[in-house]
Amino acid sequence: MNNGQIMKRVAVFASGRGTNLQALIEATKKGEIPAKIVLVITDREDAQALRRAAQNFIKAFYLSPEGLTREEYDTLLLRFLQDNQIDLIALAGFMRILSPVLIRAYPNKILNIHPSLLPAFPGLHAQRQALEYGVKVTGCTVHLVDEEVDHGPIVIQRTVPVYDTDTEETLSARILEQEHIAYPEALKLLAEDRLIVQGRRVFIRDAGTT
Amino acid sequence: MNNGQIMKRVAVFASGRGTNLQALIEATKKGEIPAKIVLVITDREDAQALRRAAQNFIKAFYLSPEGLTREEYDTLLLRFLQDNQIDLIALAGFMRILSPVLIRAYPNKILNIHPSLLPAFPGLHAQRQALEYGVKVTGCTVHLVDEEVDHGPIVIQRTVPVYDTDTEETLSARILEQEHIAYPEALKLLAEDRLIVQGRRVFIRDAGTT
Repeated sequence: MNNGQIMKRVAVFASGRGTNLQALIEATKKGEIPAKIVLVITDREDAQALRRAAQNFIKAFYLSPEGLTREEYDTLLLRFLQDNQIDLIALAGFMRILSPVLIRAYPNKILNIHPSLLPAFPGLHAQRQALEYGVKVTGCTVHLVDEEVDHGPIVIQRTVPVYDTDTEETLSARILEQEHIAYPEALKLLAEDRLIVQGRRVFIRDAGTT
Repeated sequence: MNNGQIMKRVAVFASGRGTNLQALIEATKKGEIPAKIVLVITDREDAQALRRAAQNFIKAFYLSPEGLTREEYDTLLLRFLQDNQIDLIALAGFMRILSPVLIRAYPNKILNIHPSLLPAFPGLHAQRQALEYGVKVTGCTVHLVDEEVDHGPIVIQRTVPVYDTDTEETLSARILEQEHIAYPEALKLLAEDRLIVQGRRVFIRDAGTT
């Protein structure tokens, strides 16, 4: 369903298990998103994301942050991105805060996913924060990345209930299911150039009936 | 469906239109909640809540806050409550912050409803805050009242979507529909003594299958 649209070239940054990377790989392979994941970047040598990339014949780089400032690291990343003609970036459990070097080079072109309904529970261990606060509903948020952490304009949010019997693990698993739906949806909208960002609000072009 | 349970005597505090008061009146009249609204208190002489109380033959007081400290005001209120053997309190758009005088006299016996998914968007104009932040999901929260504003342990949360076309009015109306479902549900749980408060978490006794 490419409809003559240009395929966007996407880089995914990941530090951990890479299940969101996997969800994005599978979604883009189906051909419903005018985007192709052509590069995976990680800051951790042992990230499972490297193996997932290899299994899917996607070029992957491990770039060690050792001895580099954040700006130096991001300047190197930016060179990789430019060498590979990257249009869009998806952060998938990438455990580094991006510097303005990258964010200004890709304005409203970088997505992040966070396991809470932002602005509630930003930062680490969002699921644990939600349990400890005692909310009855939580979820996940896909947002465009700006220069503040877990802060940029929101593209999609999906909710899950919190049960009395929940542990951090059961709640995280329930949220993850929704992440794997929300992230491909958001990448599709971004790749189709359908996001209209006005201040903090993100409107969807040609959203059809809601 | 009283099942031999003692009917809890409820006071509702309201300052405005009193639509949540109306929802609670209707729900308790159906006989599904072991509670009876026997007192309505307002701090505004022109509150529609007074008319709703009269129409339903519920005793109502207007207590002017003029010239009184918060503690003096609440001490007077407490006397009304005790004179009327009030067991539970429901805040329904009551535009005053309760002092410890009342909160300590009714520990975990006071409910409040707020038009957002707390901890997001506490305080005034929660719906406008949500629109301006650009969230895609918001809702309402019924919580027990503690000594911080919009902060106590959460009993029920219900969600609504935010649409691109929403204004503060349309979003507020969509949330209000959910408030009118959530508030009677929460009062029922409280009146049935089914809330187990552990720190910030509220568990439901005999919740059945979730």
